[in-house]
Amino acid sequence: MSEPFDAVDVIRTKRDGGTLAPAQIDWVIDAYTRGVVAEEQMSALAMAIFLNGMERAEIVRWTRAMIASGERMDFSSLSRPTADKHSTGGVGDKITLPLAPLVAVFDVAVPQLSGRGLGHTGGTLDKLESIPGWRAALSNEEILAQLDRVGAVICAAGSGLAPADKKLYALRDTTATVEAIPLIASSIMSKKIAEGTDSLVLDVKVGSGAFMKDADRAGELARTMVELGTDAGVRTVALLTDMSTPLGLTVGNALEVRESVEVLAGGGPADVVELTVALAREMLDAAGRPDADPEAALEDGRAMDVWRRMVAAQDGDPDAVLPTARHTENVLAESDGVLTTLDAYDVGVASWRLGAGRARKEDPVQAVAGIEIHAKPGERVRKGQPILTLHTDTPERFERALEALDGGIVIDPAGAEVPGRPATVLDRVAG
Amino acid sequence: MSEPFDAVDVIRTKRDGGTLAPAQIDWVIDAYTRGVVAEEQMSALAMAIFLNGMERAEIVRWTRAMIASGERMDFSSLSRPTADKHSTGGVGDKITLPLAPLVAVFDVAVPQLSGRGLGHTGGTLDKLESIPGWRAALSNEEILAQLDRVGAVICAAGSGLAPADKKLYALRDTTATVEAIPLIASSIMSKKIAEGTDSLVLDVKVGSGAFMKDADRAGELARTMVELGTDAGVRTVALLTDMSTPLGLTVGNALEVRESVEVLAGGGPADVVELTVALAREMLDAAGRPDADPEAALEDGRAMDVWRRMVAAQDGDPDAVLPTARHTENVLAESDGVLTTLDAYDVGVASWRLGAGRARKEDPVQAVAGIEIHAKPGERVRKGQPILTLHTDTPERFERALEALDGGIVIDPAGAEVPGRPATVLDRVAG
Repeated sequence: MSEPFDAVDVIRTKRDGGTLAPAQIDWVIDAYTRGVVAEEQMSALAMAIFLNGMERAEIVRWTRAMIASGERMDFSSLSRPTADKHSTGGVGDKITLPLAPLVAVFDVAVPQLSGRGLGHTGGTLDKLESIPGWRAALSNEEILAQLDRVGAVICAAGSGLAPADKKLYALRDTTATVEAIPLIASSIMSKKIAEGTDSLVLDVKVGSGAFMKDADRAGELARTMVELGTDAGVRTVALLTDMSTPLGLTVGNALEVRESVEVLAGGGPADVVELTVALAREMLDAAGRPDADPEAALEDGRAMDVWRRMVAAQDGDPDAVLPTARHTENVLAESDGVLTTLDAYDVGVASWRLGAGRARKEDPVQAVAGIEIHAKPGERVRKGQPILTLHTDTPERFERALEALDGGIVIDPAGAEVPGRPATVLDRVAG
Repeated sequence: MSEPFDAVDVIRTKRDGGTLAPAQIDWVIDAYTRGVVAEEQMSALAMAIFLNGMERAEIVRWTRAMIASGERMDFSSLSRPTADKHSTGGVGDKITLPLAPLVAVFDVAVPQLSGRGLGHTGGTLDKLESIPGWRAALSNEEILAQLDRVGAVICAAGSGLAPADKKLYALRDTTATVEAIPLIASSIMSKKIAEGTDSLVLDVKVGSGAFMKDADRAGELARTMVELGTDAGVRTVALLTDMSTPLGLTVGNALEVRESVEVLAGGGPADVVELTVALAREMLDAAGRPDADPEAALEDGRAMDVWRRMVAAQDGDPDAVLPTARHTENVLAESDGVLTTLDAYDVGVASWRLGAGRARKEDPVQAVAGIEIHAKPGERVRKGQPILTLHTDTPERFERALEALDGGIVIDPAGAEVPGRPATVLDRVAG
């Protein structure tokens, strides 16, 4: 046998609570990429990692091995510093859309290599594809040219970055091994480090609509990723942000683009503006622009200018009318009172079932499907007032979407109105 | 979707330490047999079971679901009671060969549906196939006819019994999920219950050459299997027996057949005779023959008569000369003293590497390969005396076989000779 290790020995080591040797990690990632370690072997190893954990040195090595499985990008030819942002995924999380052009206003290059939605969380590329003509797939040369000319690019990650992660990510999705901190942290950071950015801001979501439901686990994930980035020479900061209820007042593809454009026009929901500005300040700080004023750039139209050039550079028409659903249905308040819960996960699943998301990678999505939100937690509502409007082109989907919302909307008839608004940014973790 | 459950939900339940519902277990075994639950999903579930365990009710249901995945045999047309024996596998464990004809002497039908060796433990069918002409594959009709006419049959288990177990067994072997008590117990018992025997005696091995290295885990496995059998209406007893050193004085295929014939002729090594008689007494008791005298049947040739008819019924020639290896090499004692260790696992691996076993299911085995043992633990040896003789037709295998024995033979120059012989039967578990 020509392989230096045996997959069964590697799995057994982790199964029995041991520490994987650096050479074992390098081999298992490489052999999995080559197909020598079988899918069922990697899934047994992933479950053992899920249940027995990994030490910090193992996570560092695992991440490096995934980076080494593919190519690395190089932005050093750009005249500007680069700043990148990654969200662990939430419901109504359209922040990348206003954020990338906003940060680029200040002469920082923002490469946002993004993914598509899977499960109840939406995908940035799916949202932008509701703009007529817009193109997600760019070559490495096109990415560099657009960063140089426009400053911001949001596009599909090429298949060359961390191919081991791509294979493992798909496997984890079908084997209930997604929510393991070592696997999440190494998956995200391998791609981000391979992208070659100078600095990285992580938006780690906490709450029902996030992978991490509680703040302790989200904090652990944030610290693990900040350490991995810092070790690899990337200035890395993480914000822990609320995902107990959807971000903003829209969930879905075209609906979220419309809301993003409102923010770029100086308006938009307060929580979306707050988080966009908070993440922009972190990115600008990390890129050496501590005096930049992102709020001003939203108000005076500079961010909108970059947005329009960014969309046009990828063959999208920034003036096009976005598509609208043929069918809508309102969900009404069942009593007078204060809305205490509008559950992010339930709204995410409902939007997904309306056609905004996909169950399998190869499924198409509806640009028009999604949900408008008319009241947020803490607000007083009257019986019969619409809380949500559901949108879809396929009305037979309403029934299962409504089922998903069952229990997700709670009105307390005796509840007191909450003054102000719940905080969106909950904590900050720096290297 | 037409499936009542989702594999990811089932895996997640066990991953999070929960109890699988009966309907989830029935579905996952059936869907795995149909190929709807993928190999990588079952391996993640197996690892979660390995690490989080199963409650008794789950193991019972899992076993039943595996039985339901295939056909059941029916021996009720026989005029005699049936008694079956199963060993969890060891090194030099040829007991089935003398045991089946010995028990059949007393008008008990002994159906021994056996497997081939994989890894360091030998396979009963591989051993018998060193008899010229002998045929392992019988139809269900042939099995019944031979039980009726001869009383004993040792043959290959048909592919119809517990097909779910066959798939899962192969998967566990490559994913380091073999040694989980719920999975071992349900695998063995699903096949044995599907075989439809009235009574079953389990030989649960303990020690370096066994799956269970320590007595506590072996005892737990024995209790679990006895409970499963008793629940299913099979009179079940387990003996815990020593597997720290090989059984008898031979390991390998033709070598073990030769030793079995010695036992049937009233001779043979004391430990093999002891275990054969102990298991025979248990089987005869369970089959309602408490007054039978198996020792007498070995001494007076009645067991040998049944052996010769059993071999001949499957086209084997009981008078044929067994094949002999072209090459042998002696392993000599390195000092005077008392042999304190002759490690079962190391001897098993060495014999496997000489060609007696297979690394993959499709590999051929050498009938002649194996090891003769000239001294057992507790015996005094002299420097230069042969401890082992290695046999093979392919002498390039000697080097790796000798490597496997490194550290497996320990001689204490100051050791005292142990009077008598270490016990072979360590404990007994009854329902």
